[in-house]
Amino acid sequence: MYTAQNPLRWGIIGLGKIAHSFARDLALVPQARLVAVGSRSQEKAIEFAQTHTTSDNQPVACVGYEELLALEEVDVVYIATPHTSHVEWSLKALAAGKHVLCEKPMALTPDQVQEVTSLAQSRGLFFMEALWSRFNPAVQKAMDYARSGRLGALRYVQADFGFFALDRDPASRLLNPDLGGGSLWDIGIYPIFWAYQLLGTPTSITVQKLAASTGVDAQLRVEFNYPEATAQLFSSFHTFSAMTAQAGGTLGSVLLHPRWHETDRLTIQTPDLGTETELFDLIGKGYTYEINEVIDCIGQGLIESPLWTHQNSWELNALIIAVSDSANSL
Amino acid sequence: MYTAQNPLRWGIIGLGKIAHSFARDLALVPQARLVAVGSRSQEKAIEFAQTHTTSDNQPVACVGYEELLALEEVDVVYIATPHTSHVEWSLKALAAGKHVLCEKPMALTPDQVQEVTSLAQSRGLFFMEALWSRFNPAVQKAMDYARSGRLGALRYVQADFGFFALDRDPASRLLNPDLGGGSLWDIGIYPIFWAYQLLGTPTSITVQKLAASTGVDAQLRVEFNYPEATAQLFSSFHTFSAMTAQAGGTLGSVLLHPRWHETDRLTIQTPDLGTETELFDLIGKGYTYEINEVIDCIGQGLIESPLWTHQNSWELNALIIAVSDSANSL
Repeated sequence: MYTAQNPLRWGIIGLGKIAHSFARDLALVPQARLVAVGSRSQEKAIEFAQTHTTSDNQPVACVGYEELLALEEVDVVYIATPHTSHVEWSLKALAAGKHVLCEKPMALTPDQVQEVTSLAQSRGLFFMEALWSRFNPAVQKAMDYARSGRLGALRYVQADFGFFALDRDPASRLLNPDLGGGSLWDIGIYPIFWAYQLLGTPTSITVQKLAASTGVDAQLRVEFNYPEATAQLFSSFHTFSAMTAQAGGTLGSVLLHPRWHETDRLTIQTPDLGTETELFDLIGKGYTYEINEVIDCIGQGLIESPLWTHQNSWELNALIIAVSDSANSL
Repeated sequence: MYTAQNPLRWGIIGLGKIAHSFARDLALVPQARLVAVGSRSQEKAIEFAQTHTTSDNQPVACVGYEELLALEEVDVVYIATPHTSHVEWSLKALAAGKHVLCEKPMALTPDQVQEVTSLAQSRGLFFMEALWSRFNPAVQKAMDYARSGRLGALRYVQADFGFFALDRDPASRLLNPDLGGGSLWDIGIYPIFWAYQLLGTPTSITVQKLAASTGVDAQLRVEFNYPEATAQLFSSFHTFSAMTAQAGGTLGSVLLHPRWHETDRLTIQTPDLGTETELFDLIGKGYTYEINEVIDCIGQGLIESPLWTHQNSWELNALIIAVSDSANSL
């Protein structure tokens, strides 16, 4: 197992905004050490390394991702490059013998998911898609309530994730079709994840899509049907939404407060016990929980997390594609 | 204007659970006095009158609703009979020269709404449908945010209202088709009201209906489409839901916390101002606000509330019928 004296040694490639947030949270986990960061831009790599240098740790600034993958002292690589290059660098990192935590979405097709996870399996290396909300303690507790039967038979799921982004540069990551843009892959993945976690793959899907001028989806209103349940989901760059998620059953409901995917509170309501709001004292921005999961799993010699398996990534990816196909067939 | 010395004198007919809640709140409003209560059951009338007798006020127990309507000292009648008799007793109360506050839904067709409100208008009497959530201070504040432009252009509305009730007596009010049963008229009216208040009448509607064994709707999943906005609504006796309502626009969002239709808190989120939760110190269960509105309006000689007009009742009723028709055409 990893300890503060013998930490898991991390490299980060793709040094954008989320990489900064992640690195700050990494510094809060004693069993982790950031040993290297890689960017195609030398300036960016050096600046990032300096920003995250502490009194007892100075990450190496690598120019180009290959340079980082070649470093023997890197145990695990966190991939935070644009969506469209996740597969390429996951494969290269695994081929270089590194464990991998890859930002979501890990791939843009189920076949790609299969390709990456197969390589991890054949190489005996850990791979996980960075579905960080899966490890948020409030989200976990809500899932526990839902799965433990405390809410009775689950029959209703709701989740929304919207913010106005149509004023952004059409060439930017969010709106650019060549960079995997659109609300579906960037944020729609969260509501779909929530429904998938609670109810699995739906038997039918309805989607109302709004297209951005660049052709990517600006908004998706999505309904999932299950034999005994229904889900109302929403993702949007066309409008803000309050960003709640909930699950309801025959005995009660649980609500994740805004912004639910990184929330520190839930409210459980049952007729017997009334209404109770639980607060969670989050560590860092919330990436610490997936970081700890990676460290625990690798420490145990696992190649996947039991909480977010390769199969989970494959099924979520297939579901996102199904939503996309439903939208495009309108 | 009415004062504690010269209060508006109320009668209540239909002495069920909601009438008790209403009477308790009425006692909290100094400008109101409960002078008479009417039930078809003498025992129920006497018991209700005794329950709500105070040191300085003793309401008369009337057997039969006509007896109450004949009392000269009654200024305004609160009608809390079953849905299917709202129209009959609204008409009779108005014909008897009484102002009327009628529990929602005030009627089961737009024509009936028209008939009742026309009579109020021709008699110069006040009539209002008891859409109490319209007067809840948190709901009002959320509407103010939405309407003032603080959220930008409104593009998303969500509201849900679900509780498990399929284990109730099939002959009971909630499930009995002869008593106007079904989730739509009893609780679906709230989410539809919320969308209507914020966005008006939609240009198209989709509905997924689940029928109870009695034939009434056990659940409705409803989507409203507007030229620039969309609404996801839900009402159910098939499951609990967290009971939130929200509105989102190009500049931010507002969330009404559970149970939103009677809530004491909202959360407003905008990128500029961050996230702010506002608490409201509710008076009573929350009927006090509609009670005060009735008193103010009658005191001013109005025949309708500017906040929930006869036209509003007509449009909401027509919208509920449109939802019902959309559901039945599946």
